[in-house]
Amino acid sequence: MHKLVLIRHGESVWNKRKIFTGWTDVDLTAKGIADAKRAGRILKRDGYTFDIAYTSRLRRGIWTLWWVLDAMDLLWIPVRRAWQLNERCYGDLQGLSKVKMAKKVGKAQVFRWRREYTVKPPMLKLSDTRHPRNDIKYADVPRKSLPSGESLQDTVARVLPYWNKVVVPEIKKGKKVLIAAHGNSLRALVKYLDHIPADDVPHLEIPTGIPLVYELDNKLRPLRHYYLGTKSEVKKGKRTHKRMHK
Amino acid sequence: MHKLVLIRHGESVWNKRKIFTGWTDVDLTAKGIADAKRAGRILKRDGYTFDIAYTSRLRRGIWTLWWVLDAMDLLWIPVRRAWQLNERCYGDLQGLSKVKMAKKVGKAQVFRWRREYTVKPPMLKLSDTRHPRNDIKYADVPRKSLPSGESLQDTVARVLPYWNKVVVPEIKKGKKVLIAAHGNSLRALVKYLDHIPADDVPHLEIPTGIPLVYELDNKLRPLRHYYLGTKSEVKKGKRTHKRMHK
Repeated sequence: MHKLVLIRHGESVWNKRKIFTGWTDVDLTAKGIADAKRAGRILKRDGYTFDIAYTSRLRRGIWTLWWVLDAMDLLWIPVRRAWQLNERCYGDLQGLSKVKMAKKVGKAQVFRWRREYTVKPPMLKLSDTRHPRNDIKYADVPRKSLPSGESLQDTVARVLPYWNKVVVPEIKKGKKVLIAAHGNSLRALVKYLDHIPADDVPHLEIPTGIPLVYELDNKLRPLRHYYLGTKSEVKKGKRTHKRMHK
Repeated sequence: MHKLVLIRHGESVWNKRKIFTGWTDVDLTAKGIADAKRAGRILKRDGYTFDIAYTSRLRRGIWTLWWVLDAMDLLWIPVRRAWQLNERCYGDLQGLSKVKMAKKVGKAQVFRWRREYTVKPPMLKLSDTRHPRNDIKYADVPRKSLPSGESLQDTVARVLPYWNKVVVPEIKKGKKVLIAAHGNSLRALVKYLDHIPADDVPHLEIPTGIPLVYELDNKLRPLRHYYLGTKSEVKKGKRTHKRMHK
């Protein structure tokens, strides 16, 4: 039996301001930092350890992982920063207020952009400074792999090959793996692991800053999953967990 | 022409208390953190960037690198944490006061332990909890490679293979490399690069927290080297730099 731990980064500056973020590289808030540190303390207290960790190329994911590892005294383990684990690319919505957009195009459209499995946002132009092709962070990534905007389905299409080619072999070798990533890159992974139908994906939400443990059999099929922490620590997590299986 | 940047971590808790540290995993002080952040700001201001970074498996090296990369907005680059870049292992001296030892065995002996090229400290017993064999951090390292105590010569003997096999190929590919490490692992590298004779090594000191740039030709032979920063920032560095070539 293998244990995999997932953690979604805590509150970022743009989460707080209700702005579409996507690949915009914003910082964690003080609350987001505190969330990550608490998650690290919970993992340590509950006897977890890791051999390797994965995160995205975005500061809020990298910093979340960092504070977790610091709290666990595991800063020395190898860390991989994969663009494939980045948040879903929100295209031309990046930088816009969710509230203002709801007034402009209606709440239903905003919900569809945010939650429908195959709905794409308006695309970024290639010349847009926000386009990943114009960001040095992704200079080593094949140009055609860099999105102008993604549906969750598109996000799944780049998360899963990374999961299967890079992460799975490490788990099969017996390595204890931690992944610190984003709402949608983790939804992509959870959808796949738990065979959640596309129709149910709008209701799938992973709470921020709470370690989510997957117990996997030797073929990496999920046996069960649960959030770590005391009742009050996972209150939000448990609620969401139930909703996942409505 | 290639540019390589080295940085020695800033003040640690045990530096400040004048305790033999070696592989003991102690934290940076507030000054050590400020040193690292300032080094990052200097590198950014002077237009440096990096494609990959190397550090040790010790918190004071890892955190120094972290604060430099954070200041440069380069948290997303790959980082390798190599035990081969750890500080020299001070064996059974680890945890002892340099001042008290000077009173007990004489200043001359302490100087020899600290600076003579081939002088080894008293060795750690294999059963000692301080021995790296008993530290989970090094569980993946061949047992016979883990030191019980090292002369600087011994440190050179594990730094250089890592430099030649792992770092050099990246530099030759054109990658811009940063190494954040320790007084003695960096002395080992500088001794090799600059062909400093063993007799001169006692006088070789690399200042903490100041970026040291090596310009290397296409065979990685040093053309020149210098410290970054304003006059006041490199005051200590320049002085030490001269002493290196007395």
